[in-house]
Amino acid sequence: MLKVGIAGASGYGGGELLRLLLFHPKVQVVHVAGENRAGELVESVFPHLPLSSRMEKHPIDEPWNDIKILFTALPAGESGKLARLYRDRDVHIIDLGPDFRFRSHQRFSEVYKMPHPYPEGLSEATYSLVEWNRKAIKNSRILACPGCYPTGTLMGLLPFVQEGLLKKGSQIFIDGKSGVSGAGRGLTLDTHFPEIAESMKSYKPFSHRHGPEMEEAIECLAGFRVNILFVPHLIPVNRGLLSSLYFTLEKDWKEEDVWNVMKKYYQDETGVYLTEKPPSTAMVRGTNRTAISLRMEGSAAFVETAIDNLVKGAAGQAIQSMNVIQGWEEMEGLPMIGAFP
Amino acid sequence: MLKVGIAGASGYGGGELLRLLLFHPKVQVVHVAGENRAGELVESVFPHLPLSSRMEKHPIDEPWNDIKILFTALPAGESGKLARLYRDRDVHIIDLGPDFRFRSHQRFSEVYKMPHPYPEGLSEATYSLVEWNRKAIKNSRILACPGCYPTGTLMGLLPFVQEGLLKKGSQIFIDGKSGVSGAGRGLTLDTHFPEIAESMKSYKPFSHRHGPEMEEAIECLAGFRVNILFVPHLIPVNRGLLSSLYFTLEKDWKEEDVWNVMKKYYQDETGVYLTEKPPSTAMVRGTNRTAISLRMEGSAAFVETAIDNLVKGAAGQAIQSMNVIQGWEEMEGLPMIGAFP
Amino acid sequence: MLKVGIAGASGYGGGELLRLLLFHPKVQVVHVAGENRAGELVESVFPHLPLSSRMEKHPIDEPWNDIKILFTALPAGESGKLARLYRDRDVHIIDLGPDFRFRSHQRFSEVYKMPHPYPEGLSEATYSLVEWNRKAIKNSRILACPGCYPTGTLMGLLPFVQEGLLKKGSQIFIDGKSGVSGAGRGLTLDTHFPEIAESMKSYKPFSHRHGPEMEEAIECLAGFRVNILFVPHLIPVNRGLLSSLYFTLEKDWKEEDVWNVMKKYYQDETGVYLTEKPPSTAMVRGTNRTAISLRMEGSAAFVETAIDNLVKGAAGQAIQSMNVIQGWEEMEGLPMIGAFP
Amino acid sequence: MLKVGIAGASGYGGGELLRLLLFHPKVQVVHVAGENRAGELVESVFPHLPLSSRMEKHPIDEPWNDIKILFTALPAGESGKLARLYRDRDVHIIDLGPDFRFRSHQRFSEVYKMPHPYPEGLSEATYSLVEWNRKAIKNSRILACPGCYPTGTLMGLLPFVQEGLLKKGSQIFIDGKSGVSGAGRGLTLDTHFPEIAESMKSYKPFSHRHGPEMEEAIECLAGFRVNILFVPHLIPVNRGLLSSLYFTLEKDWKEEDVWNVMKKYYQDETGVYLTEKPPSTAMVRGTNRTAISLRMEGSAAFVETAIDNLVKGAAGQAIQSMNVIQGWEEMEGLPMIGAFP
Repeated sequence: MLKVGIAGASGYGGGELLRLLLFHPKVQVVHVAGENRAGELVESVFPHLPLSSRMEKHPIDEPWNDIKILFTALPAGESGKLARLYRDRDVHIIDLGPDFRFRSHQRFSEVYKMPHPYPEGLSEATYSLVEWNRKAIKNSRILACPGCYPTGTLMGLLPFVQEGLLKKGSQIFIDGKSGVSGAGRGLTLDTHFPEIAESMKSYKPFSHRHGPEMEEAIECLAGFRVNILFVPHLIPVNRGLLSSLYFTLEKDWKEEDVWNVMKKYYQDETGVYLTEKPPSTAMVRGTNRTAISLRMEGSAAFVETAIDNLVKGAAGQAIQSMNVIQGWEEMEGLPMIGAFP
Repeated sequence: MLKVGIAGASGYGGGELLRLLLFHPKVQVVHVAGENRAGELVESVFPHLPLSSRMEKHPIDEPWNDIKILFTALPAGESGKLARLYRDRDVHIIDLGPDFRFRSHQRFSEVYKMPHPYPEGLSEATYSLVEWNRKAIKNSRILACPGCYPTGTLMGLLPFVQEGLLKKGSQIFIDGKSGVSGAGRGLTLDTHFPEIAESMKSYKPFSHRHGPEMEEAIECLAGFRVNILFVPHLIPVNRGLLSSLYFTLEKDWKEEDVWNVMKKYYQDETGVYLTEKPPSTAMVRGTNRTAISLRMEGSAAFVETAIDNLVKGAAGQAIQSMNVIQGWEEMEGLPMIGAFP
Repeated sequence: MLKVGIAGASGYGGGELLRLLLFHPKVQVVHVAGENRAGELVESVFPHLPLSSRMEKHPIDEPWNDIKILFTALPAGESGKLARLYRDRDVHIIDLGPDFRFRSHQRFSEVYKMPHPYPEGLSEATYSLVEWNRKAIKNSRILACPGCYPTGTLMGLLPFVQEGLLKKGSQIFIDGKSGVSGAGRGLTLDTHFPEIAESMKSYKPFSHRHGPEMEEAIECLAGFRVNILFVPHLIPVNRGLLSSLYFTLEKDWKEEDVWNVMKKYYQDETGVYLTEKPPSTAMVRGTNRTAISLRMEGSAAFVETAIDNLVKGAAGQAIQSMNVIQGWEEMEGLPMIGAFP
Repeated sequence: MLKVGIAGASGYGGGELLRLLLFHPKVQVVHVAGENRAGELVESVFPHLPLSSRMEKHPIDEPWNDIKILFTALPAGESGKLARLYRDRDVHIIDLGPDFRFRSHQRFSEVYKMPHPYPEGLSEATYSLVEWNRKAIKNSRILACPGCYPTGTLMGLLPFVQEGLLKKGSQIFIDGKSGVSGAGRGLTLDTHFPEIAESMKSYKPFSHRHGPEMEEAIECLAGFRVNILFVPHLIPVNRGLLSSLYFTLEKDWKEEDVWNVMKKYYQDETGVYLTEKPPSTAMVRGTNRTAISLRMEGSAAFVETAIDNLVKGAAGQAIQSMNVIQGWEEMEGLPMIGAFP
């Protein structure tokens, strides 16, 4: 059994990681840390995890010695510190946070308004959108799992970019729709039940941090610059993320031909579900799958993807990354069928 | 007291009309008809209306003689029949349905796949988006209230069109997000609670009937052709409609200057709330107001509007139209403050 | 116009009070205070109130001089201080909090674990369940509006007590079901959207503070001791409170005869809706009404009431109380029809 | 691999059965029938099941020959017909419907207002509340899985009955709270999203069919008659069932002693989670677990249980029953940890 630890397990991303790893047949979770809940029973931190073990503190001063993989689900600037602490050990860092998503520490600093915690680590890091970056993942010590919005967007957009269907400098409008778990477990008035139930709204239009992440990822994975205009929305569901992409191609395309492009990239991907019906978040809830649909009218394209923001958008992709590193079946231990309703 | 009747009062739009008219100080509702619930007590048709009167049948064969205004909230093809029946009477038809939203019966037939029920009536009809068409409304016998999605979109888009900021033939991407009451009271699997609660999805991307309605209205009200690419989404809330508009202007604009355009058109409108904060449906729930915000980046524009789909998107706009016809205070009897949470 | 002020207007109860008073034709709100939001625009504190006035500080050190009524919607111990400050003025205190709900300061201290802030004020205070205590309300300086749960329970239970249908010392089981706004606007993990959406649970079974309040009110209003066994539940809706009462009568009763008892007490009450159909919170949402139903089987009784916890359960009842004091129509300015859906 | 078939797989109970059986390591589902969706792809019937096989018709005229277990999730009167059809075969019928829950066909007829479809089968049937009836289950051809409400209630109540803590003829008040999936997938106005979202209500107070089922089960399993007074409520969540039991014991009990009774019966049950914290449906969502809590005050008892109505309340218990019959690990293939949030 591969021994792993989780730092940041008291939030939704870390909790989901813990849940999914408990089902993984080849992994043993030996450390579970949640800084602000340290000392508490896991079952008192999460209602669904009937474990009588206690949450630990983060391994900030002293590394955990018995693990091969450290999963980090921490705020910006925190996982970098842990990656530095583990720099001379034979341990992979799989990070659900943003510290290693940009190639340059300057770009990170611009976007996150803080110095990078471990600039030297960036050269060891790989952007871990598995379907598009398997080879590089396999040989990296640090894996930067994409944010939930970038995951949904990139899965839908990259076939167009790779295939050269977009003009250089194209404007891509992205309307993101996220369930409230995507905003985290920290208490805010915006996520207080009566404020958001029976409501919906956008936030940070054109200025959310996942916009630059998407641009960087497209340039990095496909060598192409686009202009991402991203507007996230908060929707009163727990889980689920719909990414609605609107853009114009260089010329008119038949819908059928665009479907063929999609199939070229995805027909052998077990984690991708191409669907003529509009994708719903119910299709993928609880799973590591991405549902994708599209619609063309002349040169105008609409592509929509649905993911579970806590699985493919966070913990599931982290585990998928671990499976790649270990050379295991890529979806080992990951649910491909969810619960409905 | 002005005597009015409602045909189609057993659905959500008609029920909201009845509710709001009960509060109107100058109106008396003398007929309430709901074909498939005829004979039932109003309080058994709606849980919130403790009225012991009974629903009538629609006045199909014989007109109601004692009314000055007939509100119709009926499926396509039905209100035209009633308008024909009342053609020689001094009665205004205020229609919440689609029969009189297009200027030509051919266009109606193309979009709704049925012959127009009363083509001669089209010349007497006016598109009743009140803030943009008051003068014409005042002198019309038949008022075609806009659909809920067109209302939200047009309120946000028309200042740009009127001011000439768009290129001719511009592509306008519209991501509509509607509460489930917008899909009506008819039973469908898509609107069965467990299917849509904790889910979200698009429907009829690029092919919903409100797309052509928007194009027609823009051409009609502003003499300008645009290419509307409309994708509606079903969101698990009861009421509320967010219209997210994405488009590119002819040149780069400063955000401040675009705000000034908005103010030029709306600063004296009591029904419009310009807000720097992203508009939420909670801002306008239960009211006849439209909340509007915007964001620019270079030439790329994002405009978002929030309305209550059953009030400004249906029953409220119908009453606002009646107020105009009667020469009353335009928002007479209409709630401008809603309930929260 | 009667001038009034609100202390505690930044919570849900106070916000609802402000909203409803804006519609009241005989009242002018001249002060709106919210301690922790003082200085902010009302429209930034509440999304639905487009007011450009600013929140004030509570009148702790210096009374507001220009008001006749002070509404207080504050945590335990706070409104007593204000009542003391106003003790020599011709100002009524209408309190939505618990400070004046018990007749003795000792009982208050036992239940709320704090000294009473103004014991001398208790003799001037009346429990303001309007339908059951109108006469006393009319002549009191301080009105203690009942808690939301006691309102729902007492409206259903008092006819049985008054009519002598219960054994002395009867056990009354009360299953309360409240929307999340009932838990207030303060941030807690329990009311964070993802924790409670798609869940439900009880809290403080047999030990919630509203249990003793119910016992005291029954003894005070009907001179009778019962044993209240109260279990509140948190339900993922915004507004609405269902009180499900289960108890055994002294002997077998026919359902029809029990309905007659209900009618005896309520048939002339405009605020009470007796319904054979099970009451739903949708029946009363946004209104000051109480819907009541019942079911008998032998000596076993089931009575269920539905109220809007923020209206009849808080702000509406406060305004109803003010109307009684002023000798106005009791439901003046209060909505009796709500919005649905 | 054990070959099984499902009749009634297009509803929520049958769909959940299919989902869970897909994960079972020792079972192969060889027939999936949904009468009114026969011929359709499974993936078009359910959004979460990406299977390209087609739904069959029910095996009404001709038995499926290749199965050892037939799961039936059908309306009253239907599974009895299939049980008759299979009467001479070596096939177990595991029924999620009500046909075999009563010992006498007369009682079934009284409660379900129809003749029993297969009275001779009753002698072969066992009430399949696994924790309380394992031995009998093992040797039965027909297993009658309890209804969702009886499951939740019996799990909480049986220790009291078994231990003799109740008076004979005791009144047991049961306040059931069910998510909307419990009402099935058939379209009704009550379960149309806008009617029940942001509402809650009881239905069939004291007259729901699960009341007699509970009485019968208690008499059958514990040889004791109680008077069940059952009021179910519809709550706007998808999954989850809370059973709140209120009753009076023969004498005063200390809470600690009652906990000891609970532990005596449940401490070795892997499917039972005894919790001092009030149980929430989030604790058990997606799992085959029952969370149980209790509270005493003198002789008054409050017991509350939480289950997932589609798992322990339906499909999960059916699979647990199958595991008993086969002599497998009782929770084989059944999720004991759910997803949160």
